[in-house]
Amino acid sequence: MKIKFTLEYNGKNFSGFQAQPGFRTVEGEFRSALNIFFASEFKKKGLDYKFEETISPSGRTDAGVHAKGQVLSLIWPDVLSFDPHRVIFAFNGIAPADLSVLGAEIVPDTFDARFSPHQKCYKYYLKLRRARSPLDLARYWHIYYPIDLSKAIAAAKEFKGTHDFKAFRAADCQAKTTVRTIIDSQLVRISEDELVYTVIGKGFLKNMVRIMAGTLVEIGRGSVTHSPSFLLKEGRRELAGETAPAYGLCLEWVKY
Amino acid sequence: MKIKFTLEYNGKNFSGFQAQPGFRTVEGEFRSALNIFFASEFKKKGLDYKFEETISPSGRTDAGVHAKGQVLSLIWPDVLSFDPHRVIFAFNGIAPADLSVLGAEIVPDTFDARFSPHQKCYKYYLKLRRARSPLDLARYWHIYYPIDLSKAIAAAKEFKGTHDFKAFRAADCQAKTTVRTIIDSQLVRISEDELVYTVIGKGFLKNMVRIMAGTLVEIGRGSVTHSPSFLLKEGRRELAGETAPAYGLCLEWVKY
Repeated sequence: MKIKFTLEYNGKNFSGFQAQPGFRTVEGEFRSALNIFFASEFKKKGLDYKFEETISPSGRTDAGVHAKGQVLSLIWPDVLSFDPHRVIFAFNGIAPADLSVLGAEIVPDTFDARFSPHQKCYKYYLKLRRARSPLDLARYWHIYYPIDLSKAIAAAKEFKGTHDFKAFRAADCQAKTTVRTIIDSQLVRISEDELVYTVIGKGFLKNMVRIMAGTLVEIGRGSVTHSPSFLLKEGRRELAGETAPAYGLCLEWVKY
Repeated sequence: MKIKFTLEYNGKNFSGFQAQPGFRTVEGEFRSALNIFFASEFKKKGLDYKFEETISPSGRTDAGVHAKGQVLSLIWPDVLSFDPHRVIFAFNGIAPADLSVLGAEIVPDTFDARFSPHQKCYKYYLKLRRARSPLDLARYWHIYYPIDLSKAIAAAKEFKGTHDFKAFRAADCQAKTTVRTIIDSQLVRISEDELVYTVIGKGFLKNMVRIMAGTLVEIGRGSVTHSPSFLLKEGRRELAGETAPAYGLCLEWVKY
């Protein structure tokens, strides 16, 4: 039986998604909560069990990045029944406070959160003002200097479409192809001093959204003078903007 | 010279606004940052100084309540010049991370943040779903049980107008009159699982907005069966709902 999980997490104290020995990761904490649940279920049946199946996420989030709707899939042990409410309550009782299961459902065996076609929505949160913000400290990238908003808002639209994003990936990104399709790319002012940059796409390169967000801010500031269209054509990482900090980014949803 | 300050703070680690010996309060931290600034300014002039003026806030916020736009006024020492940018930068360099000065400006000597006529806007943030929220843990009151939203939304409107709020104040509230005017009272769903309750008024009793919010949630749940109109007429605290937790409440703005 294949199960699809939807997760929310606060990225602050996680070294990213993927399990790594010696680091606190989303996958690691998820796996260990699941193990406790499974062990107790198997014990009731007089059986021993260790969960060693692969966990397939829609994609790995970087260290510090938040998620409101990360999706992952895994194979459920055959001998256990599956009751979504029970699983959610048990899981959230076991897991740490910065990780929560929002949903769990049976999906066709062919479903794989990573490889099944999907769209993903990221939001990057920006706070624009001189004084620091005690309330939004943990979720917004705070820009203390003035930026030309209309320039940044116009530039955001240029990312839409299918392009080679070679200039917008981390140096250690290992993707074989750097061509990606961006379905939506919009920078919107949501209050006097808050901006949200929304990006929807089918897949992303490592750090891609953070470099796009950093580039838009630098275009607004004037420290990047090339347009996104030019940067995409040119394909040189050093001409694009800085990588915006991880804590401003949130994986909002994944749709299959 | 009279100065009006606008403050943002994260209420989590403050024992309320008002200075109290032995407690960490907003006024206490503000006053001590101001003292450091004044002492250094006076020292440049070869003078000693201790700031002992009264600080007059638009109102005291309870322990744990946040503010995005609290306003206070105070008398500026005559011998010091006043440069708002300098004051803001200096203050925010000295003050702790959970307190920030957003604005500082000269106002007429007759201005008093507490006694000058004003309107105040509070927002109460609610999260409605079964699974806990790692991202909104600190700012939302999380309601785990289902509530009848349309009932709660309709009830919110009944608070509008001038009423006796005797049933909606803390047991130790010392206000002489309990009649207050509510200019707006609206419960709005802002996303699939988030509600914001906005209240605008000229003045509030102790815990008043939190009891109003708690009552609306209980009306939606069915554990309070009386309408706000009835509760206002009846004036009995025990018939109204519970006091909603402080961390869901934020003083959004004060207008003079």
